[in-house]
Amino acid sequence: MTEDLHALQRRLAAFAAARRWEPYHTPKNLAAALSVEAAELLEIFQWLTPEEARAVMEDADTARRVRDEVADVLAYLLQFCEVLGVDVLEALSAKIDRNESRFPLPGDGD
Amino acid sequence: MTEDLHALQRRLAAFAAARRWEPYHTPKNLAAALSVEAAELLEIFQWLTPEEARAVMEDADTARRVRDEVADVLAYLLQFCEVLGVDVLEALSAKIDRNESRFPLPGDGD
Amino acid sequence: MTEDLHALQRRLAAFAAARRWEPYHTPKNLAAALSVEAAELLEIFQWLTPEEARAVMEDADTARRVRDEVADVLAYLLQFCEVLGVDVLEALSAKIDRNESRFPLPGDGD
Amino acid sequence: MTEDLHALQRRLAAFAAARRWEPYHTPKNLAAALSVEAAELLEIFQWLTPEEARAVMEDADTARRVRDEVADVLAYLLQFCEVLGVDVLEALSAKIDRNESRFPLPGDGD
Repeated sequence: MTEDLHALQRRLAAFAAARRWEPYHTPKNLAAALSVEAAELLEIFQWLTPEEARAVMEDADTARRVRDEVADVLAYLLQFCEVLGVDVLEALSAKIDRNESRFPLPGDGD
Repeated sequence: MTEDLHALQRRLAAFAAARRWEPYHTPKNLAAALSVEAAELLEIFQWLTPEEARAVMEDADTARRVRDEVADVLAYLLQFCEVLGVDVLEALSAKIDRNESRFPLPGDGD
Repeated sequence: MTEDLHALQRRLAAFAAARRWEPYHTPKNLAAALSVEAAELLEIFQWLTPEEARAVMEDADTARRVRDEVADVLAYLLQFCEVLGVDVLEALSAKIDRNESRFPLPGDGD
Repeated sequence: MTEDLHALQRRLAAFAAARRWEPYHTPKNLAAALSVEAAELLEIFQWLTPEEARAVMEDADTARRVRDEVADVLAYLLQFCEVLGVDVLEALSAKIDRNESRFPLPGDGD
């Protein structure tokens, strides 16, 4: 069974601490690294038509690359949240609540 | 209690479906949007010294902005994974396993 | 008549110096700012179909936004090159030379 | 003598046309590619201290990488401007004019 998000966040923190990478893991550096990894994910799609983009998981090599970049994005996001003490699940839950008010459905609030 | 990651992913999918946003949520568009949100998080830090960057959560307005951008990054990452059928927790768990082999600790493997 | 690239680069340097912004204009900060501006340009296109994207200059407001973001990207690129002493035109000319060898045309070299 | 910006822009357009890359060079794809290249430039700096970042051109390999990424950013910016008919020098000149009004110097306007 896969670990949950907080277990993975703790594993990443222990991994960095054991390798003494913490001095590099400033909030600014981690925000830059997150942005770089998101761009590497985008790079896979940059020359594809919308149709080709939809089929990327059918090619084993591209599928592996997509999963790898997705993992890197989440890894840096969790490490960023770790050093600043942000609860990412709580932040997203609160954001969805706000968006439900911002973009109400027809019939909502009747 | 906060929902777990998969509950948030399902909530985001239902939110987009109810507003008929699915035609816009192609893998390519979501990868672009993820990259744009990661840059918006980086923007908060771009002119700060490493010391100022470490203190961003002490200012209520900046802290709110950080949580908001973090939520947006996770939201687009989960929506991207949803449309391509990627299990993001499994992808990250596998990546940490690989990194433990790639960057062994002194004493590992004795 | 519009100034040439090096005249604009000197004007940007004088502008920053007069406002005492130089301490913020480190290579790392300028590389981050360049990346953020490039993402703001991408943001204009993120939900558009390829056809809608081709027509962006037909709407006066969007056209103004495109020109504004393009100017910001070039401004940070030139300021980055200024602080590191890189000649951007020479760098691009050399790169095109290399690409002509890397991607020869059929019939080249006969 | 190095070519000027417009000469390089024409060379890039001819290069792409000769290789029949034009169908890939949509505004949306070029904006994505520009953003990806800007992130690759940022990647060079992501773990460096401000002091290390200032010294990047002293190492021949890193200096070559910086010039290469700077060339890629400018190449995609020019190709983007080419397909949308944007004059990038004019756009930047107009932007600096606006910024001189937005951020007046003490004593300006007396």
